[in-house]
Amino acid sequence: MAEEFSVVGKRLPRLDGLAKATGQAAFTGDLNLPRILQGKILRSPLAHARILNIDTTRARALPGVKAVVTGKDTLGRRYNVLRFKESFADEYLLAMDKVRFIGDAVAAVAAVDEETAQDALDLVKVDYEVLPAVFDPEEALKPGAPRIHDHSENNVSRRINLEFGDVDGLMASAYHVREDTFVTQSQSHVPMEGHACVASFEPNSRLTVWTSTQIPYLIKKDLALVLGLEDSQVRVILPYVGGGFGGKSDGLANLDFCASLLSIKSGRPVRILYGREEEFIGTRRRHPIRIWMKTGIDREGRIVARDVRCIMDGGGYNSYGPASVLLVGIFLNLPYRYQSYRYRGTRAYTNKPPSAAMRGHGAPQGHFASDIQLDIIAKETGIDPIDIRLRNALEAGETTLAGFKILSSNFAACIHEVAQKSEWHERKGKLGANRGLGIGCSGFPAGTGFRQRPDIPTYSSAVVRINDDGSVAVLSSAADTGQGSDTLLLQIAAEELGANPEDVKFIRADTDLTPADLGNYASRETVFAGNAVKAAAAEVKKQVLPVAAEELEANPADLVAFGGFIYVRGTPERRVTFLKAAKKAIEVNKGRPVVGEAAYDPPDKMNYATYTFGAQVAEVEVDPETGHVTVIKLIGAHDGGTAINPMAVEGQLEGSMHMALGFAMSEDLVWEDGAALNPSLASYFIPGPFEMPRTELIRVDSWDPEGPFGAKEAGEGTVGPTAPAIANAIFDAAGIRMKSLPITAEKVLKALGEKGAGKA
Amino acid sequence: MAEEFSVVGKRLPRLDGLAKATGQAAFTGDLNLPRILQGKILRSPLAHARILNIDTTRARALPGVKAVVTGKDTLGRRYNVLRFKESFADEYLLAMDKVRFIGDAVAAVAAVDEETAQDALDLVKVDYEVLPAVFDPEEALKPGAPRIHDHSENNVSRRINLEFGDVDGLMASAYHVREDTFVTQSQSHVPMEGHACVASFEPNSRLTVWTSTQIPYLIKKDLALVLGLEDSQVRVILPYVGGGFGGKSDGLANLDFCASLLSIKSGRPVRILYGREEEFIGTRRRHPIRIWMKTGIDREGRIVARDVRCIMDGGGYNSYGPASVLLVGIFLNLPYRYQSYRYRGTRAYTNKPPSAAMRGHGAPQGHFASDIQLDIIAKETGIDPIDIRLRNALEAGETTLAGFKILSSNFAACIHEVAQKSEWHERKGKLGANRGLGIGCSGFPAGTGFRQRPDIPTYSSAVVRINDDGSVAVLSSAADTGQGSDTLLLQIAAEELGANPEDVKFIRADTDLTPADLGNYASRETVFAGNAVKAAAAEVKKQVLPVAAEELEANPADLVAFGGFIYVRGTPERRVTFLKAAKKAIEVNKGRPVVGEAAYDPPDKMNYATYTFGAQVAEVEVDPETGHVTVIKLIGAHDGGTAINPMAVEGQLEGSMHMALGFAMSEDLVWEDGAALNPSLASYFIPGPFEMPRTELIRVDSWDPEGPFGAKEAGEGTVGPTAPAIANAIFDAAGIRMKSLPITAEKVLKALGEKGAGKA
Repeated sequence: MAEEFSVVGKRLPRLDGLAKATGQAAFTGDLNLPRILQGKILRSPLAHARILNIDTTRARALPGVKAVVTGKDTLGRRYNVLRFKESFADEYLLAMDKVRFIGDAVAAVAAVDEETAQDALDLVKVDYEVLPAVFDPEEALKPGAPRIHDHSENNVSRRINLEFGDVDGLMASAYHVREDTFVTQSQSHVPMEGHACVASFEPNSRLTVWTSTQIPYLIKKDLALVLGLEDSQVRVILPYVGGGFGGKSDGLANLDFCASLLSIKSGRPVRILYGREEEFIGTRRRHPIRIWMKTGIDREGRIVARDVRCIMDGGGYNSYGPASVLLVGIFLNLPYRYQSYRYRGTRAYTNKPPSAAMRGHGAPQGHFASDIQLDIIAKETGIDPIDIRLRNALEAGETTLAGFKILSSNFAACIHEVAQKSEWHERKGKLGANRGLGIGCSGFPAGTGFRQRPDIPTYSSAVVRINDDGSVAVLSSAADTGQGSDTLLLQIAAEELGANPEDVKFIRADTDLTPADLGNYASRETVFAGNAVKAAAAEVKKQVLPVAAEELEANPADLVAFGGFIYVRGTPERRVTFLKAAKKAIEVNKGRPVVGEAAYDPPDKMNYATYTFGAQVAEVEVDPETGHVTVIKLIGAHDGGTAINPMAVEGQLEGSMHMALGFAMSEDLVWEDGAALNPSLASYFIPGPFEMPRTELIRVDSWDPEGPFGAKEAGEGTVGPTAPAIANAIFDAAGIRMKSLPITAEKVLKALGEKGAGKA
Repeated sequence: MAEEFSVVGKRLPRLDGLAKATGQAAFTGDLNLPRILQGKILRSPLAHARILNIDTTRARALPGVKAVVTGKDTLGRRYNVLRFKESFADEYLLAMDKVRFIGDAVAAVAAVDEETAQDALDLVKVDYEVLPAVFDPEEALKPGAPRIHDHSENNVSRRINLEFGDVDGLMASAYHVREDTFVTQSQSHVPMEGHACVASFEPNSRLTVWTSTQIPYLIKKDLALVLGLEDSQVRVILPYVGGGFGGKSDGLANLDFCASLLSIKSGRPVRILYGREEEFIGTRRRHPIRIWMKTGIDREGRIVARDVRCIMDGGGYNSYGPASVLLVGIFLNLPYRYQSYRYRGTRAYTNKPPSAAMRGHGAPQGHFASDIQLDIIAKETGIDPIDIRLRNALEAGETTLAGFKILSSNFAACIHEVAQKSEWHERKGKLGANRGLGIGCSGFPAGTGFRQRPDIPTYSSAVVRINDDGSVAVLSSAADTGQGSDTLLLQIAAEELGANPEDVKFIRADTDLTPADLGNYASRETVFAGNAVKAAAAEVKKQVLPVAAEELEANPADLVAFGGFIYVRGTPERRVTFLKAAKKAIEVNKGRPVVGEAAYDPPDKMNYATYTFGAQVAEVEVDPETGHVTVIKLIGAHDGGTAINPMAVEGQLEGSMHMALGFAMSEDLVWEDGAALNPSLASYFIPGPFEMPRTELIRVDSWDPEGPFGAKEAGEGTVGPTAPAIANAIFDAAGIRMKSLPITAEKVLKALGEKGAGKA
C-alpha cells in the first residue's frame, strides 16, 4: 500500500528545533512593541461569592496605571468555546456578578511596568458576599447543594447517555462479569511556556493579537465575538509556542480578552504573561473522574457488554467540558470491540477551576479503567492479558458501535510487538518478587468533522505558493505548539511537489495571511491540515508540470515529481530540478504568481477522519517497605498510520509516555476548600529525568486511505496506555490493584497493607 | 472616458495615517528581538586612501563586543544596484583595498549596547596610505587627475551620447538660438526616518531582515548575492518607513550588509540605525550637475533643436549614477516637443559620497535648465512664457524623439490652469517693484519596464485572497515608504471587487509572503503594482460573481460589483453584499480558499508605461537690500491621470513643492576637501513651516489607458517645475537670471549688484 517517498518518512529535523535549542526563537513574551504596557489580572480569593462592588478608584489614580477594567467595562457577553448549544456559554471572561472558583478573573490593569501593575491590583477593592461553596462533584449533584449557576438546578453541566445494543441482556447472559470503580485526579497541562498574550488595538480600530495558543483562528473569531468587533477587525498571529497539551485549545483565556480590552481602553499595546501559579489556578486542568465500569465477556474472552457511569468534576464553568463528558463515553468504544455498550456521564459544576481538554481528552481516564478491568477479567478467567486484548482488538474494516469507521488498524500488530519486545510470554510472572509486567492499550481518533459552532467551518484550508526564486511557501493556520506540525506539513508539501524540503517554507498562522484552520486539537492537524496542504500542493504541481514538460519535451502526464526533480517516467535522467521548473512556471506566466489552494473536510462530518491504535508494556519494581514504585521500562508500539516524520512520531510517543507517567504516578493538583495546595513546580510533581524509565519506541505504521500519504496521528492516543500498563504491572509485581490515580507510594503501601491483612 | 467609481477617486484617509500620527506605528528602529545587538559602522576619515592594515584586536577584546567585521570577512564581491553591465559593480559594501570618500564604510561592530559599539569603533586601528584626491568633476576628468578606480582611466563613471534628428542643421537654420550654463547642487534626501536595519540570521541558516527601504524585493536578491546565500535563504520584511525620496532605492546600503554579516558572525540579531550625520555623509545625494544647454526655435516659438551637455559629480561610486546620466538626457525630452535633440552626459567619479537617485532622478536638474532657458528665449523673442510652453507642449498620441509614447496628456490644460489661477495675463509684470510671477513645467514617466539586471524580472505581481469572513487580503511587495501606495492599492482592489475598502486589508511587503514587486522607484507602484492588484482582484471577482448570481438567481454576466454590493445590472435592488457573496464563495468551495493572482509588465519593455505632466506658477518678492527672496505662493497643476485618491495626489503635489523649494532656495550640502561642512539639520536648511508659501493645488486628471483605472503618477514629476518657476519669477521681479542652485540671498545680492553694475 505504501508508496516510495523522498521526503515523507524521513527523519527531518524540526523546523523550529535549532531556534528553540539556541534560544533565538521568539515567544509571545519576547515581543516588544513601542509603548507596550504590562497587564495583570486580579483573581478571586474566594471559591464562591457574589460581587457587590468593585472600587477601582485608587488603582486608576496610581501613577503609571493606564487602564483598569472590570466586568462593567465589557459587553457582558457570556462565553464558551463550544457553541453548538447556546446554553453552554456560562462564563464571563471578567466576572460580572459572581465568582465561582478561587482564581476567577475579576479585574485587570495595564501599567507601565509589572511592579506598577501589581501595585494597582492591590489597590482594587472588591466587596464580596461569600456564598456557600461545593467542591466534590457528587456532593454538588445532591439536592440542596449550593447552586453555582442560575441555569443549572442540580449543578449539572451536562449529562450524556449513550446506549448501543442490548447491554442488560448480554450482561445477564455473559460468561463472566466484573464491576469496578476507578478514580482519576486533577492533572495540569504545565506547558514550558505559560499562557502569554500581546494585544495591540491600533488607531484604525483593528486589533492585532499575538498569543500562545493552539487555535489562532478561533481566537480571532472569539475575540471579535466578545469584544463586539467584526471578524475582519481582529488579526491573530501565532509566535513560537512552548507547549499546549490541550490547555491552550479551549477558546479565549482570560488574558486574551483582558489584554485586548486593556489595549482598546489605553490605546497602547498590552502584554500579559501568566506566572507559574496563575498557570496552575487560572487555566484549565484534566477532568478528575469517578468511573464505575461493568464488563461482561463470553467464553472466548470477547466483550459482550460494557456498562459505564462517570461523574466528572467540572469546576466552575463549562469550558470544553460538555464535549469532555461525551468524549469519555465515545472514546471508550475504542480500542476494543463491544457487542453492546452503555455510557452514562455526568459533568458536575464545582467551585474549582474548570476542567477541560487535556491531551487525550477523556481517553486516558477511560482507558485507565478499561485496561485495568480487562486485566482483572483476564486474571479471573485465566486468559493471558495479551490474548484477551488480541481477541477484542478492532481491525480495519470494522465499524464500532458508536459508528467509528476503522479504515486502518495495526492494533493487533502493536500488541504483538510489545509482547515480543518485552519477552512477555517468557518473562511475565517470572521476574521474581516485586517485579512485574503489565500491558495497556489505546485507540484514538484523529481530526473531528463535528461542527462545534454554527458560525465556523470544520475544514482545514491551505494555500501553497511558488516564490519567483522557485522556492515554495506553504500558508496554513495550523498551529504548531511544539507537536511538530509545521515540519510535517512542510514535508507533505515537499513530497507532493517533488521539491527539496529546504526549498519549502512553512508560514505560521497569521489570520490575515494564512487561510482558515481550526488549529491544533483533537489530533487534527496532520490529517486535516495535511490533506489541505497536500491538495493545495497538487494544484501547484498541476501548473508546474506542463512547464517542465516543455523543458523536457515530454507529455505532462508522463512526468514524475520526486526528490527535488521532475523527470520523465521510465527515463529518470531526463529531468529538471523542481526549483528550476517552478521558477520557470512564473516566468512563462509573465510573473503571474503560481498559487494552489485547497481545503479538507472529512467525509463523515459527525465522526472522525482516522483512528490510531497502540499498546504499551510497563515493567515495574515495587518497594514493599516504602510503597515506592520504580517504572523500569516502557515499551510502546503505535500505529499512527504512515509516519510523515518517524523522529516526530517517536518524539511524540516518548513525550506522551512522560506525560502519562506523571498522570500515573505523581501529578496531582490537590485541593482544600477550593484552594490548590500545590500550584508550584516545587510541589506539583512532574517526572524528572531520573524518574523517566528506559523507553523502547516501536512504530507499526499502517496506511490509512483518509490520511495524507497514509498518515494518522501520534502523541495524543499514545498518552492512554501508560497508566493502565503500570497499574497492571504493579499487580503482576505485588498482587495489588491500583484503581486510583496517581499511584503514590502512600496508596501502594496502604494497598499492600490491606492485601497483607486480607491474606492474614 | 472616466467611469463611475465607488472607491477610486475618494479621499480615503491613509491606512497608516492614524498609526503614524499617534506614534503607534512601529518603524525598523522600534523592533526588538531577544538578544539583539547594536551595530555601528566605522567610516573613513579620508577622502582617498589605500588601506594598508586594519587591526581589530583591541575592538574584539572589549567586553560586550560580539563581532567585528572588515572587508576581509566578506566574500569581496563588488556590488552595484544596476547590473545590466557587469562593470557597473564598483563598490565594496565594506572597503577591501581603498576608501574613496569621507564616509566610506571600513569596518563594523556589533555589541551589547550602543556605547560599547561606539567604544569598539574607536579601538579599530586602520593604517591608511593617503592618496591625492579630486573633488571637482571637471578636474577629475582632466588628464593626470588622481585616479579613483582602476577600471576607469579618466574617472569617467559613464558617458551617454544621444542624438535624434539633425541638431546641427536645424540649430543653424533656427530663427533664434540661445545658449546657457546652469549649475545644481548636492541635495540630500533627509527622510524623517534615517536608514535603519535589523538583521537576524537564524540557526536554520535563514536570514530575516527588516529594513527601511523602498525596494524590499531587491534587498532580498542583493543580500543573497553579496552574502553568497540562496535567494530563498533571505527574507526581507518592510516595517513602516519614514520616507525614502530615492535615497532608499539604490540597492543595499552599508547597514543592510553589515547588520546581516554581523548577525551571521555573532549568531544574534543586530540592529543598525544611522544617526543624522551618518545619514548625510554615509548615504547618497542628488547629483550636482553642470548643464550647458543650447536651444533653437523657429518663428512660431517651436523648439527645432536642443543641444545639451552635462557634467555630473558622481562621487566615489556608481550607485544609480550610470542610470542617472542617461535619465537626465532622456527626461529632457519631456515635457516639450523637439524637432531634434542631442545629449552628451558625463558622470565623473570624485572623492565625495556617491550621487544617485533622488525624487525626479535627473529631471529636476534638467527641467531647471530647460524652463529657465525657455523663459529667456520667450523674453528675447517677445513671446509670452505661457504661449511658448503651450506651443511646445506634448499632446496625447505623440511619440517623443526618445520614443516615449504619450497615451494621455493634459499638459496644455495644466498650463492654462496655472495661468488662470495666477491671473497670469492680468498680473504678470504688473505686480510692482521686486514682485514677480514665473512659470515652470514638467513631464515625467511612471514605471519603467527596463530590465536593470539580467537576474530579476521587471514586472509587479500581486495576490488577492478572500478570507473566510469575506474580507479581502491584498498581498504585494510594493513598498509604501510614505508616498501612500498601500492605500491606493487597497482602493484599486476594492474598486475592482466592488468591496468596501474597510473590508480590504493590504499586506505589506514580506518577501516570504508577498509576491515579487521591484518596489518603489521610478514612480512605478501605482501603475505597475496597481495594474497587478487590479488584475488579481478581477480573478477573484470571477470566482465570486457566479456565487452571487446563484444567490440573486441571475446570470453572472449581468452582475455589477460596486460600492460594497453585487447587483443585477438595471435592477440595483436585486443585490447581495460583496462580503456575503465572498464568504459564500468559500462555503460553496467547501473551504477552498478563493485566490486571484496576476502580474503586470508594460507593453514596451525599453520604455515607460505612462507619462505625467504639470505646470507651476511661483509668485515671489525679492528684497533688494538683503537679496532675500520670499516665495509668496506656489500654484501647481498636475496631470497624474485618474487620481485614485485625490487627497494623496494633492499631498504629493504639496510635499514635492516643499522639497523642490528646498532644492531651489536653501538645501546644499557644502563640501571642503571632500568633507561635508554642514551634515546637520542645524546647518543644512530644509524649508520650515514659515518658509513654506501658500499653495494652490490643481488636479487636471486625464485617463491613461495603460494605468489602473486611468491612473499615472504624482509626487515625482511634480518636483520639477518649482525651481524654474521661482527663478523665472525672480527675473520677473528683479530682472536677474538665477542659473545656479540654491538661489541664496548671497547669490541674488551678487546678481543684483552685477545687474546694477551692468546697467550703470
